[in-house]
Amino acid sequence: MNRSIKFGFLLALLCMVYTAGGATAPGQEKTAATQWHAAQQFGVRGLGWEELAQTFTRLPAKAQGVVSEEVWRLGQNSAGLHVRFVSNSKSIKVKWSVRGNVSLNHMAATAVKGVDLYARSPQGWQWVGVGKPSGKKNEAEVVTNMAPGEREFLLYLPLYDGVDSVAIGVENGASISAAAPYEKKPIVFYGTSITQGACATRAGMAYPSIIGRCLNRETINLGFSGNGKMDPAMANLLAELDPALYVLDCLPNMKPEEVQPRTLEVVRLLKAKRPDTPILLVESITYAHVWIDQRVADVVQKKNQALRKAYEQLAAEGVKKLYYRNTKDLVNPNGEGTVDGIHLTDLGFTHLANALVKEIKTIDKKNKLK
Amino acid sequence: MNRSIKFGFLLALLCMVYTAGGATAPGQEKTAATQWHAAQQFGVRGLGWEELAQTFTRLPAKAQGVVSEEVWRLGQNSAGLHVRFVSNSKSIKVKWSVRGNVSLNHMAATAVKGVDLYARSPQGWQWVGVGKPSGKKNEAEVVTNMAPGEREFLLYLPLYDGVDSVAIGVENGASISAAAPYEKKPIVFYGTSITQGACATRAGMAYPSIIGRCLNRETINLGFSGNGKMDPAMANLLAELDPALYVLDCLPNMKPEEVQPRTLEVVRLLKAKRPDTPILLVESITYAHVWIDQRVADVVQKKNQALRKAYEQLAAEGVKKLYYRNTKDLVNPNGEGTVDGIHLTDLGFTHLANALVKEIKTIDKKNKLK
Repeated sequence: MNRSIKFGFLLALLCMVYTAGGATAPGQEKTAATQWHAAQQFGVRGLGWEELAQTFTRLPAKAQGVVSEEVWRLGQNSAGLHVRFVSNSKSIKVKWSVRGNVSLNHMAATAVKGVDLYARSPQGWQWVGVGKPSGKKNEAEVVTNMAPGEREFLLYLPLYDGVDSVAIGVENGASISAAAPYEKKPIVFYGTSITQGACATRAGMAYPSIIGRCLNRETINLGFSGNGKMDPAMANLLAELDPALYVLDCLPNMKPEEVQPRTLEVVRLLKAKRPDTPILLVESITYAHVWIDQRVADVVQKKNQALRKAYEQLAAEGVKKLYYRNTKDLVNPNGEGTVDGIHLTDLGFTHLANALVKEIKTIDKKNKLK
Repeated sequence: MNRSIKFGFLLALLCMVYTAGGATAPGQEKTAATQWHAAQQFGVRGLGWEELAQTFTRLPAKAQGVVSEEVWRLGQNSAGLHVRFVSNSKSIKVKWSVRGNVSLNHMAATAVKGVDLYARSPQGWQWVGVGKPSGKKNEAEVVTNMAPGEREFLLYLPLYDGVDSVAIGVENGASISAAAPYEKKPIVFYGTSITQGACATRAGMAYPSIIGRCLNRETINLGFSGNGKMDPAMANLLAELDPALYVLDCLPNMKPEEVQPRTLEVVRLLKAKRPDTPILLVESITYAHVWIDQRVADVVQKKNQALRKAYEQLAAEGVKKLYYRNTKDLVNPNGEGTVDGIHLTDLGFTHLANALVKEIKTIDKKNKLK
């Protein structure tokens, strides 16, 4: 996947043209000890559509009016978007401004509107530091006191707010450049608030992002809080992408009676355009309070049974490369993985990501995902 | 431990006296479908001092001016306080008002100022529902649609705010009464923000509370954010209590040079008054960013070495029943257990609690903790 990189280079070129007179480039403003670089220079990852590389949003302009107003609005949140860069700076700062300065009463602001930094270590991606938000305009020294040497970094953008601008600050004189592009096609996740990342404590803990780090693959987060409803309009948009795998995880936002017909419609739409791309259907997680709330238990069970029926019908019709993950052990068996029964915490997301990584590895083994 | 219960009965008696004229008791206001009961009627647990049973705070009046202003202020937060009751209601509501309406940028409001409900199941305490806060005055239906039958519940109060009042609402006609008292002495935790519960997503996920549920013991949370400094004035207060075990987990708030002398002083003070009560010294957790921030790595190591020296000196002096937990594996080895390197998430707290439960069980085996 090097689309983002291409757009990054284009933008960098534009910056150079604009600053031919010798002034400081907008993406390269110098302060006393820090050199700031617009994040777009290094390519924005986790994007489905090329036109988005400069806007930090998740849906292309043509989706407006096609998807619901709520989906469009949530598409402006930067969930899953990230920037990868290489630097030898001994400290990394980030300046970012958010559009909504959103507050949620069941989710830490660090995840709602903060940034989250990882670096590549011999053990894989390892957490480095968080940028805590203070308002619309934010600046944070995310890590300092690093030993000399060049490292690859991965910076996640806010999960539940939109971002107007992001700049990465390195020490004056330090190098910074785009990381090598992902080698393989992305995995696309279409889902609910759980997919979008509610209620992680940091942007990097949304489950598609954990999976991305674990598999060292690009993941595209198309989770829309309360609005991941297996919408055929969304399916048409998803079919435009060319991912390694589609993961459909919409049940928590759907009514039981919607599950079977919409699953049939969405899978058929995707398979008509992308017959060779595997699809993974995921049952609703078993909410943490189903053991005591009889009504919720009943609803979750009905939805999962409906998804299973749709899967069996599609399999009977001969649909190939369609995979299924039932609810068993998707969430912590001790019931402690959520904040409110439904929305996963870092504890719950870690468990869910591990379960889906196992599933994706099995699909990869069968299909040699590119 | 039946001090809280005794005070609960006393208060219930007072309520009855006040309402001899036949009006609704202040703790038993009837609405259309819900019968409200002041939480104090059922005893407030997690308290060190008897006088506190009606105030939802953690430090006795005599501590004011003796401990630092910051410790006194944080002592007004209800971290670790909980109420246990038995009811056959099919739904449970909670009304609670907080004093500060505190907001933190790295912690969910549900944990800062929300309430958190568990129920006893054949597998032990199991999570039921959270009361999300909306402001100073809050009301939430925490669970509904429960099957008929009597259950024991455990309601945790906010971690980072003070509480003025808490009322438990059951369906009209449903029973509600105090649960049986804890059978054993409490475990007292003296520590930092990590002990107080930063940054859990729910009040029940502070590590002393997880340990309490796991061991089915009362735990007293004397964690003071930024101010758990092995203060001799606090040690004098702690020595007034008669717990099964003291856990001292203060290092993250201390300077390296303070660790050895203060540990010696605090342990000697406690042992002078409570020679038979075991003490567990806990090293600082290895912060998630020590792998990349050299300065932080150095500071944590210095503190832990100083604690080890103090422990060895005390052991050489013949101090009995003094136990030590080094930093190894206190936090998730993959570095994902914190929100900001220091403050644990539900993922980190689960890991830390498991490590300390193991330690406490070993101490229990040796000492038969009452």
